[in-house]
Amino acid sequence: MPDPRLDVLCIGNAIVDVIADATDEFLAAQGLTKDSMRLVDADEAKRLYDHMQPAREVSGGCAGNTAAGIAALGGRAGFIGQVAPDQLGEFYRHDLTAARVEFTTPPADIGVPTARSMILVTPDGHRTMNTFLGAAQELSVEVLDEEQIRDSAILYLEGYLWDPETPRYAMVRAIEIARDAGRKVAFSLSDLFCVERHRDGFTGLIDGGRIDILFANEAEILAMGGVPHLDTAVAAIAPKVETLVVTRGAAGALAVRGGERVDVPAEPVREVVDTTGAGDLFAAGFLYGEATDKSLAQSLRLGAICAAEIIQHYGARPEADLRALAGELAA
Amino acid sequence: MPDPRLDVLCIGNAIVDVIADATDEFLAAQGLTKDSMRLVDADEAKRLYDHMQPAREVSGGCAGNTAAGIAALGGRAGFIGQVAPDQLGEFYRHDLTAARVEFTTPPADIGVPTARSMILVTPDGHRTMNTFLGAAQELSVEVLDEEQIRDSAILYLEGYLWDPETPRYAMVRAIEIARDAGRKVAFSLSDLFCVERHRDGFTGLIDGGRIDILFANEAEILAMGGVPHLDTAVAAIAPKVETLVVTRGAAGALAVRGGERVDVPAEPVREVVDTTGAGDLFAAGFLYGEATDKSLAQSLRLGAICAAEIIQHYGARPEADLRALAGELAA
Repeated sequence: MPDPRLDVLCIGNAIVDVIADATDEFLAAQGLTKDSMRLVDADEAKRLYDHMQPAREVSGGCAGNTAAGIAALGGRAGFIGQVAPDQLGEFYRHDLTAARVEFTTPPADIGVPTARSMILVTPDGHRTMNTFLGAAQELSVEVLDEEQIRDSAILYLEGYLWDPETPRYAMVRAIEIARDAGRKVAFSLSDLFCVERHRDGFTGLIDGGRIDILFANEAEILAMGGVPHLDTAVAAIAPKVETLVVTRGAAGALAVRGGERVDVPAEPVREVVDTTGAGDLFAAGFLYGEATDKSLAQSLRLGAICAAEIIQHYGARPEADLRALAGELAA
Repeated sequence: MPDPRLDVLCIGNAIVDVIADATDEFLAAQGLTKDSMRLVDADEAKRLYDHMQPAREVSGGCAGNTAAGIAALGGRAGFIGQVAPDQLGEFYRHDLTAARVEFTTPPADIGVPTARSMILVTPDGHRTMNTFLGAAQELSVEVLDEEQIRDSAILYLEGYLWDPETPRYAMVRAIEIARDAGRKVAFSLSDLFCVERHRDGFTGLIDGGRIDILFANEAEILAMGGVPHLDTAVAAIAPKVETLVVTRGAAGALAVRGGERVDVPAEPVREVVDTTGAGDLFAAGFLYGEATDKSLAQSLRLGAICAAEIIQHYGARPEADLRALAGELAA
């Protein structure tokens, strides 16, 4: 197996985040479930946008955020995702490329715009996402660069890709290419409701031994394990993957590998501004650690450091120097 | 003269800000003059964007920022400016409308995109702007809503409108309508180089008695006065307008009216993040004060409060509750 050219190749929905402040009352009036992601169509997107506060736009998308985080740590990251040839697509490409992420998927001129997620941030820093997938749901098997996948130590995919049919096939094919090349496959369960929508598909991937590193937050691992207690859910899922990583917000994170369980606390933060991207950046830190042969505890710590940076400002792309924050862990 | 329906109607370039961090070395390497605004064409815009760090996009434009600030204080604000029917134009309209600013100028489908300004923010919080005017330079006399202008207590215009020819005519016509209706006209010199480019035109407006309230920063009033000393420049210009307002950054601001000069200090700030919009929001506070019959000192203080809010975060639209910050001054 040749040395990989990239540390981590991330595949996901290419989404521009449209971020605005909102009150809990506004969420309730709009019938939105706090902390969750829901898919909206063009009409619903327009209706919600018309009621939203003035917004800021920053590139997002879970896997894209993770790729940017890995690059900010000094890792060699790539991204595969579908944008349209429009202004949002240009922003998206610029931001990833300027972050030194390899992003070569061509834009798709299919009459639908680049995806956007309207993210409502409540005063407690929690975020509620309303995603119009647009061009992202057209990510197809055809745009996969098979050599790029074979040249990457770890292939990382987000569970959200399972929502639309076309990217689902691309995702399954990408996993196949990576595994055939002897590479690791990492996967995020993405969201509680995503797990509920796709439990059978996710179970097939996990039970079929196609996932090496599984990322979940507490709600997701409970849903996936089908039990109401964290340790029980972890015990049920951990044996099915090489490495299980569970993030727990302010309670820190844990990982299980080969029967060993490591817990780390959350990094201290001055103020939680916007939790968007906390899980994505945790994954970035952890995967960078894995790609650079850190211990399980060190990889978890890298994840916690990156997550702490991202929740202290609006948007899910790093603003501080992650490599400096990571100190000797990024050496 | 009927009671005005709007407190302030702002006319300016409708611009989306594309904000990224940059080093002083980067500015030097790109041949950029710190703290200034320069106009770039599409090719130059692309070249610079290709070299910029990952960015955030927020609605901007000097007069638009001022309108948003006035509305945030509780004032009745309107905006006239030209966007294209594209994603940036939609953002722009959304953000102003969501800020409760009346914005009815229809988009212009003329094959050029909505204007954007690539704003480079150095670690000291200073900003350097590179503006691609796009659709903004097509703001024409035809889109002026004459009734809206006559119904506004103050018409506020930015000097940047003088750069492209078509908006210059619209600006001159708007001033004429406002003056014929007995309304006040306020004008910002916008930028040192803008003054140097258009000294004759600006002199014509001021000496012709068509400006009631003139806004300038220190560099601009020195350039306009043609003298290297603040007090001398103020003494030269003040008699030509009803009210002269000069902002001085950390040194505060001053205003002269009817021979009376009032100086106020800058409001204390925790950290200067991004000075973009400091002058625009100062104007917002001052004009809100004028529209609500505050004293000169109170209007200046309102300006200082709004400017202090805007420089403590990225972007030139208010994020905190300006009305609450203004306290009894906004009552």
